[in-house]
Amino acid sequence: MIIIRHPTEMTAWAKEQAGRGIALVPTMGFFHEGHLSLMRRAGQLADQVAVSLFVNPTQFGPQEDLAAYPRNFESDQAMAEAAGVAVLFAPDAADMYPAVFSTTVTVGKELTGKLCGASRPGHFAGVATVVCKLFSIVRPDLAVFGEKDWQQLAVIRRMTVDLNLGVEIVSHPIVREADGLAMSSRNTYLAPQQREAALSLSRALALARTLAAKGERSAERLTAALRDFIHSFQETAVDYISFVHQDSLQHVTEIDETTILALAVKIGGKVRLIDNGRVM
Amino acid sequence: MIIIRHPTEMTAWAKEQAGRGIALVPTMGFFHEGHLSLMRRAGQLADQVAVSLFVNPTQFGPQEDLAAYPRNFESDQAMAEAAGVAVLFAPDAADMYPAVFSTTVTVGKELTGKLCGASRPGHFAGVATVVCKLFSIVRPDLAVFGEKDWQQLAVIRRMTVDLNLGVEIVSHPIVREADGLAMSSRNTYLAPQQREAALSLSRALALARTLAAKGERSAERLTAALRDFIHSFQETAVDYISFVHQDSLQHVTEIDETTILALAVKIGGKVRLIDNGRVM
Repeated sequence: MIIIRHPTEMTAWAKEQAGRGIALVPTMGFFHEGHLSLMRRAGQLADQVAVSLFVNPTQFGPQEDLAAYPRNFESDQAMAEAAGVAVLFAPDAADMYPAVFSTTVTVGKELTGKLCGASRPGHFAGVATVVCKLFSIVRPDLAVFGEKDWQQLAVIRRMTVDLNLGVEIVSHPIVREADGLAMSSRNTYLAPQQREAALSLSRALALARTLAAKGERSAERLTAALRDFIHSFQETAVDYISFVHQDSLQHVTEIDETTILALAVKIGGKVRLIDNGRVM
Repeated sequence: MIIIRHPTEMTAWAKEQAGRGIALVPTMGFFHEGHLSLMRRAGQLADQVAVSLFVNPTQFGPQEDLAAYPRNFESDQAMAEAAGVAVLFAPDAADMYPAVFSTTVTVGKELTGKLCGASRPGHFAGVATVVCKLFSIVRPDLAVFGEKDWQQLAVIRRMTVDLNLGVEIVSHPIVREADGLAMSSRNTYLAPQQREAALSLSRALALARTLAAKGERSAERLTAALRDFIHSFQETAVDYISFVHQDSLQHVTEIDETTILALAVKIGGKVRLIDNGRVM
């Protein structure tokens, strides 16, 4: 596995692969089994796997956890190499965003103004812009994203089609701990006694499936039941409980097979976790 | 010369040219000698010349001349073919902007909020977005733009670098009529008696050069002199007279060799013409 730091070197590598397919896995590092499953999936779909490792400052708000975001480059390097990655692209922020940088890629409010976008203004503009840059730099044939960030996936799919970027977007299912917690680099923020509270998200998904299986279709009644359920855990505060169409992210009043339940919960006032899934 | 209507067919053609350089000339059609000079320049710089012909609706404001913008596809086709163009890409607006389209590329106000951007809000977002799309669709090695739209050139250069698009931006000097009028498709809007007034722009540039040659360096005094000069022509109304740095577009108080004089003048209340150039 080679490590590339500079965007122009990354593009030079991509050009040398002419005719060999490249799959990109964009990440912010601090790898866990979720990331590794994306890398292995990428390896099944293309000749060469490129992984970008960049804690993108523009997708963090001023009050968010940019400085605290967990990092461990040596461990990440070893894990990526073991997963069969050909190139790890780990640029410096100063090379991604020089002082004169002033371009932004935005996707419409219908996709970015709700769910995580409601409490994280500017987040999806940061995501769309950096992914557009990464696609131009790495020139992949396809890119693999995890389904945990379902809204991010919808935003990136929209941008990729709208800007004719010519990259196939592949989504990969959420990878969970044995107890059901969706894997996330932010799980490391959880104090031991908060671990039970963190399970409120995956258990709320299970409760919604149980209620749906019993015939409940009302998003309003389901939301009320889930809110009470999540708040029955210590130190939890619901950010949102939303039933949305899987592609348009439009809120639905009656759930069906195209519905995604998306959840965001703050644990202990600081750690914000998300989860999502189908309930039918 | 082949004519391609659909973005996916255009990209397929581009991929078939692997290894042969492609130069793109983005246009809105109604070709004149200015466009043809860009096509010929493109032909000197790359193996294959692609010309896009698309009257981009998103760069026109609601009160602007989208519907009236002059079009003549048959004449354009013949002229492009004679200029050695390999492919004319003329997409439908519905294929460039499907109903669900919602992505915008914007460049910062320091480049887009002044000059033409001040009176045409949204114009440069429309330009940046469509050029980003065209670069993704046509995948050129280089693209040739005319210097008449100097601000557009600065915006496109910024976006191309910021988004790592990997396209070399080549600028080509303004082509003028024998009397000095900068060639523009919008010149066809001029009534015969407005032709003299339209010369106020190129003659103001000449006056600025004369005053600069005599030692005048003050942008404020030059602007005042040029305003009086332009308004001495019938039916003229100055939109802006600006002395700016050639790259940053920052307003300057003292002119020098890096200064561009940019002009926009309305003729007869309707036809808005632009021109620019160095004065030292």
